[in-house]
Amino acid sequence: MTNPTDHRTLNRRQFLARSSGIAASVTTCISGGAALLTSATATAKPQSTAQDCTPAVTEAFYGRHQGGIATPMQRHSYFVAFDLTSEQKDDLISVLRDWSAAAAILCSGSAKFDPHANPDQAMAQTGVAVGLPASRLTVTIGLGASLFEQNGKDRYGLADKRPAALIDLPHFAGDQLDPQRTGGDLGIQVCADDIQVVEYAIRRMAAVAAPHAVMRWAQSGFAGNFPHGYTGRNLMGFKDGTMNIDPNDQDSMRHFVWVGEEGPLWMRNGSYMVIRPVRISLEHWDTMKQSFQEQTFGRQKTSGAPLSGQHEHDALKLDAQDSNGMPLTPDNAHAAMAAPENNDGAQILRRSYSYDNGIARIAERWPPWRQAMMFDAGLLFQCYQRDPRTGFVKLFDRMSKFDMLNQFATHIGSGLFACPSGAEPGEFIGEKLFA
Amino acid sequence: MTNPTDHRTLNRRQFLARSSGIAASVTTCISGGAALLTSATATAKPQSTAQDCTPAVTEAFYGRHQGGIATPMQRHSYFVAFDLTSEQKDDLISVLRDWSAAAAILCSGSAKFDPHANPDQAMAQTGVAVGLPASRLTVTIGLGASLFEQNGKDRYGLADKRPAALIDLPHFAGDQLDPQRTGGDLGIQVCADDIQVVEYAIRRMAAVAAPHAVMRWAQSGFAGNFPHGYTGRNLMGFKDGTMNIDPNDQDSMRHFVWVGEEGPLWMRNGSYMVIRPVRISLEHWDTMKQSFQEQTFGRQKTSGAPLSGQHEHDALKLDAQDSNGMPLTPDNAHAAMAAPENNDGAQILRRSYSYDNGIARIAERWPPWRQAMMFDAGLLFQCYQRDPRTGFVKLFDRMSKFDMLNQFATHIGSGLFACPSGAEPGEFIGEKLFA
Repeated sequence: MTNPTDHRTLNRRQFLARSSGIAASVTTCISGGAALLTSATATAKPQSTAQDCTPAVTEAFYGRHQGGIATPMQRHSYFVAFDLTSEQKDDLISVLRDWSAAAAILCSGSAKFDPHANPDQAMAQTGVAVGLPASRLTVTIGLGASLFEQNGKDRYGLADKRPAALIDLPHFAGDQLDPQRTGGDLGIQVCADDIQVVEYAIRRMAAVAAPHAVMRWAQSGFAGNFPHGYTGRNLMGFKDGTMNIDPNDQDSMRHFVWVGEEGPLWMRNGSYMVIRPVRISLEHWDTMKQSFQEQTFGRQKTSGAPLSGQHEHDALKLDAQDSNGMPLTPDNAHAAMAAPENNDGAQILRRSYSYDNGIARIAERWPPWRQAMMFDAGLLFQCYQRDPRTGFVKLFDRMSKFDMLNQFATHIGSGLFACPSGAEPGEFIGEKLFA
Repeated sequence: MTNPTDHRTLNRRQFLARSSGIAASVTTCISGGAALLTSATATAKPQSTAQDCTPAVTEAFYGRHQGGIATPMQRHSYFVAFDLTSEQKDDLISVLRDWSAAAAILCSGSAKFDPHANPDQAMAQTGVAVGLPASRLTVTIGLGASLFEQNGKDRYGLADKRPAALIDLPHFAGDQLDPQRTGGDLGIQVCADDIQVVEYAIRRMAAVAAPHAVMRWAQSGFAGNFPHGYTGRNLMGFKDGTMNIDPNDQDSMRHFVWVGEEGPLWMRNGSYMVIRPVRISLEHWDTMKQSFQEQTFGRQKTSGAPLSGQHEHDALKLDAQDSNGMPLTPDNAHAAMAAPENNDGAQILRRSYSYDNGIARIAERWPPWRQAMMFDAGLLFQCYQRDPRTGFVKLFDRMSKFDMLNQFATHIGSGLFACPSGAEPGEFIGEKLFA
């Protein structure tokens, strides 16, 4: 940036704020001209649920951690996995560098990708988001295992730098993974409160990568605009996230989410993202009695309270029994399967969105095994953890075998991406990997 | 409704307000219990663009016209076309009756479909939208030509009631219509400002129809949260809707949108909906120079002003010339092709959303004719008119041959649906067709 005054000032301030654990927020509008900057204070949210309509907040791109992980969930998301078409390490570096530069400017709310570009070059300015606020846009960049090693081949001379935690995910019971929705050399997650800002940003990032990468698979997601403090509901009608890690709980984040000194330098303060589109048989689910649904989830539908409790945030009390000595919560209820006390304390930061790809001809998994047009919709499961072996794999290996929810849920895609630490202004995400 | 007091009061008030041309609005929240009703006044919006975040407004289902036509555009939409699986006229009537009853309650903001249903029946209450406001939900119901006549067969004894205006759309130049995205016996459009409310409502409507109808095709859409009074932008980055009919202009609506005495009784105050998913080659478009894009649209990109003007709402002045006597706006620019003065005064009420179905392997239409993974995204074109022969067909027949935009846009699906007049409480949409 040869004329960095405005952005440098902004980024430095955001960087300091992010580093001290306080999210910086700036009221700014994506416009063709100069961005209107007004400082404001973000409200800390206790839970990672969908945000109220707060149109004019900017999330810092630069900082100790990448955005989009501890960030309170925005309303819309778009994930794209890319495969590199080049076997040159410099081209990989070029993609990561250009992505970081583009993302920093996108997140700042400026529509101009390159302030020195010819204004007649539409590539610099698609115009799609002109007039819209930045809407808490975040861009989260991840590296897939295939960058380090693919079919035994060390494509970029990075094989010996592959972190032990960047495993090949095992095959789980029930997995029906579509290769065209699985894996990828690189993964990008864009989130914002405005769907058009998300569209604008993901298209921009795809264009930036285009010289050296092709899109492999993509999935957008959404969350309802539930009121502040209300745990959002998924497409099964249940509150989702009641027991999630609180991103403001620094101890939990350090313990469960951020990579510590056990990881390579480029991953410290980073995290591992697991992303899995999970198709849910909504038509079938909707025919189930509510009492059965509640047994399946291990929670009450309307309030979200445990089956043994009254209020959403009551303790689960998995050993509570009815007057006949029968457990109130089935051992294979979803909430019981996921509870830390049944998993040696394991926890992950979930950041899942719902998805809906319209309708498709789908074969039912129960008599009379109809083939019919049904909603191709469900959960875009997403979580962040310090180490997938002690996070997602630890939890899901058992759940994939026993969770009552499995009869309605099918994992149809999968990805694991190492999301490096955040970057300082002038640095790019993942730069330390190449040091 | 055997216990209709609350709903009857509400619907009657809304019906009267709608009939007098003033949109009624009620602050209400979709909840498992009683709806909290507070009267409020809707702000008349001069243009049919996306709405600001106004979370707690209810649109009346009952009234002279169906909702979702003159209603200022919401932020999210979901269209589903259905095919009937029954050859019994009573089953068709049953679907329309159940849809109207369900839609009335959905739009009122009550999550309970049937207040007398067993609360243990999840079909009555998926719970997906509990906690969310009604978010200006509208449901618009339309009848396809195949209900009246299909392959020469009079399936329901309605052939002689087919309105002359419910034509079979002709094949237009460049049409690449996928049969699986074309036609349908019935069409439903659900719109709301909250995507989760849209998901909830369309799933509910599909479940209500399920005994007698299967889904044929579906397409969701979205609009950015542009500020009040700002004409929203499409995925090509241009403002879209500057010259649209103002739904508050009763004369224009009567003249161009609402069916008058020329139509059968059941269609009077109704309208004809044309809906066409239009794939746009965004990657290709984004490589075009902005000056070329502006020539193609016939408008300036950032401001939306005509090429001959300074401000968005300046007159088009299609005959304006530069100092060399060359026209400032090409004859085949999109704005010129669509202008009423070039079409014998024809106008339609456009109500298009953007769509994005993720990525797909798509063959390019220009050298070197790459096949690559690209965004399967574009415009879910939608318009309402008094008669498609003098509306969409009149306009698009010429545009499909000459519009410069065509090189980036491909019509991949199509539907024409007769949307009957609105209903009074106790009546169902389309009831007069069977009188």
